[in-house]
Amino acid sequence: MKDMPRSVEWRDNTLVLLDQRKLPQREEVVLCDTIEQVFDGIRALTVRGAPAIGIAAAYGLLVGSHNKDAADIRADFNERCDYLISARPTAVNLAWAVNRMRDCERRCHKESSLFADLLQEAQSIHEEDRVACNAIADVGLPLVEAHPNLLTHCNAGSLAVSELGTALAPIYRAHQKGVKVHVFVDETRPLLQGARLTAYELHRNDVDCTLISDNMAAHIMSEGKVDMVIVGADRVAANGDAANKIGTMNLAILCQYFSIPFYVAVPLSTVDIETTSGDDIEIEERDASEVKEYAGHPIAPVGVAARSPAFDVTPHKLITGIITDAGLLKPPYTESIAKVMKG
Amino acid sequence: MKDMPRSVEWRDNTLVLLDQRKLPQREEVVLCDTIEQVFDGIRALTVRGAPAIGIAAAYGLLVGSHNKDAADIRADFNERCDYLISARPTAVNLAWAVNRMRDCERRCHKESSLFADLLQEAQSIHEEDRVACNAIADVGLPLVEAHPNLLTHCNAGSLAVSELGTALAPIYRAHQKGVKVHVFVDETRPLLQGARLTAYELHRNDVDCTLISDNMAAHIMSEGKVDMVIVGADRVAANGDAANKIGTMNLAILCQYFSIPFYVAVPLSTVDIETTSGDDIEIEERDASEVKEYAGHPIAPVGVAARSPAFDVTPHKLITGIITDAGLLKPPYTESIAKVMKG
Repeated sequence: MKDMPRSVEWRDNTLVLLDQRKLPQREEVVLCDTIEQVFDGIRALTVRGAPAIGIAAAYGLLVGSHNKDAADIRADFNERCDYLISARPTAVNLAWAVNRMRDCERRCHKESSLFADLLQEAQSIHEEDRVACNAIADVGLPLVEAHPNLLTHCNAGSLAVSELGTALAPIYRAHQKGVKVHVFVDETRPLLQGARLTAYELHRNDVDCTLISDNMAAHIMSEGKVDMVIVGADRVAANGDAANKIGTMNLAILCQYFSIPFYVAVPLSTVDIETTSGDDIEIEERDASEVKEYAGHPIAPVGVAARSPAFDVTPHKLITGIITDAGLLKPPYTESIAKVMKG
Repeated sequence: MKDMPRSVEWRDNTLVLLDQRKLPQREEVVLCDTIEQVFDGIRALTVRGAPAIGIAAAYGLLVGSHNKDAADIRADFNERCDYLISARPTAVNLAWAVNRMRDCERRCHKESSLFADLLQEAQSIHEEDRVACNAIADVGLPLVEAHPNLLTHCNAGSLAVSELGTALAPIYRAHQKGVKVHVFVDETRPLLQGARLTAYELHRNDVDCTLISDNMAAHIMSEGKVDMVIVGADRVAANGDAANKIGTMNLAILCQYFSIPFYVAVPLSTVDIETTSGDDIEIEERDASEVKEYAGHPIAPVGVAARSPAFDVTPHKLITGIITDAGLLKPPYTESIAKVMKG
């Protein structure tokens, strides 16, 4: 990987977020010193991508705490946890990471080391994610070697996670090994994470890619130019249903029609066995202005209604396999997921 | 219909095109006095929509000719015809209308009335289109009455055609009759004809509508909010395959998955029995900058490749019915189309 800007860093007791809203035109960071800034950074998509949100929240619980004594840290720790979880509802990693920090706070009985223990837990979450992405790269590599003409949606790369990303990890690994890959990148309306982030990081890392509008995927597939689709996810239910960026289910249906394999790549931290099926996943509905504007410029008539669901749920029946850090999961997912989560 | 600006007009021996690139923010017209201006107006999408392009080209052949004598008009008439046909390859109406004008020029042996005869032919093409749209409205009305929750793509309305449009004609007719319709409008990347034009004209005519990004259609369908999809087309082949704005095939595949009827609405001038199947339709590939920009603003990293096919071909097997001015055509289309074209 070329020198990529990191989406989340803990530096001098401050949470440093790469402002992904400004990419690719500008590489700017936002410094968060208050819990409200962390909340806003997650809510307003300064940081996005399920694992990155979890890591940001874990560190984010600690802003402003490094010179507090343990009693002060404990005083509102639960409140801070609940507050950050409420920033976005769909990605499970956010609640998962925050609850790990909550458990750590409860477990720690040595007041003098509370801050250090919490920081270590956040660093562990971050490091485990790095390790998981590497494992996903290895598990997915043979699939990319067999299907080097890919299509992806949104951004499940370095910017969404750590280093290699999830969906992009096997692609980067294959590229590093000299496999001639090509990636069609869905621009991913309304917030254009594909155009702004995925195209940016693939291009920066010399991975051959072509940007398309989301509605071009069917035509490109009909030309025989896509061997496999690979996407990330924000939450995978116990039955394998996967919530991911709006437009993902659309691709899965196209893959079924064109007999193209459709893979989801996630760390186990994105699998939520408490969620029985996709019906139980809350889909965040964002402000309609995201659809009616681009960068503040109106594209639709004043007064017209619009909708902006941020995610959709791909039914497990449309998913060929789930690439995880603990191996490739195949249907029936209720069994394969239960088995791997018992570990 | 409320007082809508007309997409094409012949006024004072000048072709007047509503500049659809400026909508919905500004209602401006472009005056074409030279054949090159007509070509550019078609090529650069000042005027768009298969029937409107045909009408614009028919009038466009006459710009600068009103004070020429017949010999001068005839001198380069064939060249002018070929030149305008070359402006865009996919919509058959362009070639169809131009070739009607070419036939008219050949048929006319009275030199003193050549210009008047040609103008009358162009006016006939325009008037026949108005009549066809009205017939499409009547043929499609029962379908909209039975399926009042609709979704459409691109713009096949008043701006694309004459008065009522094609895909929007049955919707306007139902609305006029008091049917409570609701239309989800795909924004239609890259050039946003849905957001800029369809939302504009539906909203202006008080038809209840909601704008969505193209990739949201599957999610909206999974919510049970779409009874029927209706789109226009730029060319329908003899077997029923239909070329239309990029993203249309995507919707047809979703409709098959969700068991939602998928209709194409066209005047017979859009049916081309010389084209055996969709494989024979040339798909216009437009400049990639259209995808790398959003409403004129760059959205992708400099140097990234992009594609911009302007159309896709929906296989006839995915089309529930074709609503034409000569009635509702049903499969097998090879038979129903042959029959109506002989009609």
